[in-house]
Amino acid sequence: MARKPRSVDLTQVTEWEDGKSRRKEDFLAAEEPLEIRIGEDPLSVTMRTPGHDLELAAGFLLTEGLIQRRAQIVALEADAGIAAENRGNVVLAKLAPEAAPDFEKMRRHFFAASSCGICGKASIDSVRARTLVAPNPDFLLDPEVLVRLPEKLRESQAVFGRTGGLHAAALFDGAGELLVLREDIGRHNAVDKVIGWALLEERVPLGNTMLLVSGRGGFEIVQKAIVAGLPVVASVSAPSSLAVQLARELGQTLIGFLRGRRFVIYAGEERIAKS
Amino acid sequence: MARKPRSVDLTQVTEWEDGKSRRKEDFLAAEEPLEIRIGEDPLSVTMRTPGHDLELAAGFLLTEGLIQRRAQIVALEADAGIAAENRGNVVLAKLAPEAAPDFEKMRRHFFAASSCGICGKASIDSVRARTLVAPNPDFLLDPEVLVRLPEKLRESQAVFGRTGGLHAAALFDGAGELLVLREDIGRHNAVDKVIGWALLEERVPLGNTMLLVSGRGGFEIVQKAIVAGLPVVASVSAPSSLAVQLARELGQTLIGFLRGRRFVIYAGEERIAKS
Repeated sequence: MARKPRSVDLTQVTEWEDGKSRRKEDFLAAEEPLEIRIGEDPLSVTMRTPGHDLELAAGFLLTEGLIQRRAQIVALEADAGIAAENRGNVVLAKLAPEAAPDFEKMRRHFFAASSCGICGKASIDSVRARTLVAPNPDFLLDPEVLVRLPEKLRESQAVFGRTGGLHAAALFDGAGELLVLREDIGRHNAVDKVIGWALLEERVPLGNTMLLVSGRGGFEIVQKAIVAGLPVVASVSAPSSLAVQLARELGQTLIGFLRGRRFVIYAGEERIAKS
Repeated sequence: MARKPRSVDLTQVTEWEDGKSRRKEDFLAAEEPLEIRIGEDPLSVTMRTPGHDLELAAGFLLTEGLIQRRAQIVALEADAGIAAENRGNVVLAKLAPEAAPDFEKMRRHFFAASSCGICGKASIDSVRARTLVAPNPDFLLDPEVLVRLPEKLRESQAVFGRTGGLHAAALFDGAGELLVLREDIGRHNAVDKVIGWALLEERVPLGNTMLLVSGRGGFEIVQKAIVAGLPVVASVSAPSSLAVQLARELGQTLIGFLRGRRFVIYAGEERIAKS
């Protein structure tokens, strides 16, 4: 029988405080490898927090450019035909013929000496090529709505409060209503899970939705959001230089340091209503 | 001419605070892809903060199990023979014949259906196979030394204070003296940089040294530390379940929530001196 995925483990630890030690029980964020297979071929292995694995796989397939829409996933199953000892950590996807990756070509491409350039510009061009739609210019946000979102995120985080070890990603509509929240040891996995949820719910491209992440807004996060059509990404901490460059070039709004009654707009200021 | 690596960029942003907007200049942590090549073959591309790229490459080669000692790196150069537009983002390594990876075998292994098991146990076994030496049982730490390290880390972080966007990793000796500190947008890169520094300085295995990281202690961090022989890893935040399991099985000391005059011991309590 497949193990039930657990996102939290309980363990015995020793706490030292100001010279005194004591044994106690502590919660840990669970981390396990997940393999995504296309038919018989392993596509990727990622360390993730178990739970919502089909969403994670669906989001990964979309944001990494293997598929463009829900209908290209013919089947998506956990553990089908997997030996007992590996259950709980494998998702099998069957894709429509036009979406099934050419593994022979990927092999050649990956191992061939790259001639396309290893630089920020090549990275941005590669995201541009996978982007479904330009970020919606008509999605506007009221700053007073924006500053209330981190508190909504924290209130909805089930695991974080107990372990301190999980990143959260959430989708909100323009009125600040929470659509979905997912947690994971990996920030990029939490983002793939919420985007995968939206894909399976037939809500992609996400032209009237924004993404909030609990950590920093690096290139990988902004890239996944742009591919899924999200017009706004906000984080409670700092973005990277390449994330800002990507958001500016592709017309996305990027917000950082969203804390208390303050935030910083790094790109796409036109979507934030003037007071 | 090669570009000078920059770890910080300056950009124009808009800050919103309590209803008022103003334009200002802001620092961003730089992020660019780095490709590591073995001879003509691309080995990996990682998003990193430019700077200390040779250390990053050396650390990556060691902690990912491609080499076991300094002498197996025959040459390590940035940008040698690279077209102008890609300069600054490629490191070329030439390895001793016995260490040079069998790319054909890696290709077959990566794309063959895995039979070794995708689970926590398989992940731990794979680290065990690459570990150089068992973590030194004679390396002991005084709690009063330990609790002073986060402050030393913060004082030495050059970039973090300005951008809020970088992770730090540092090596300390048993008396709490800082040996080296590196910062990066990716936590695992910061760890590869300090381990790579130690490798190039002929200090590996690091049996009398501890690693402190600014973020969480996940599987990837603990794995890299164990391969390099580090007997103690400490972080200011939470470890993951698999990181704790790995540290316990391989005999490493793992500390979390190192803040103020408090910390939590998740594994290897015997190295922390009793008061």
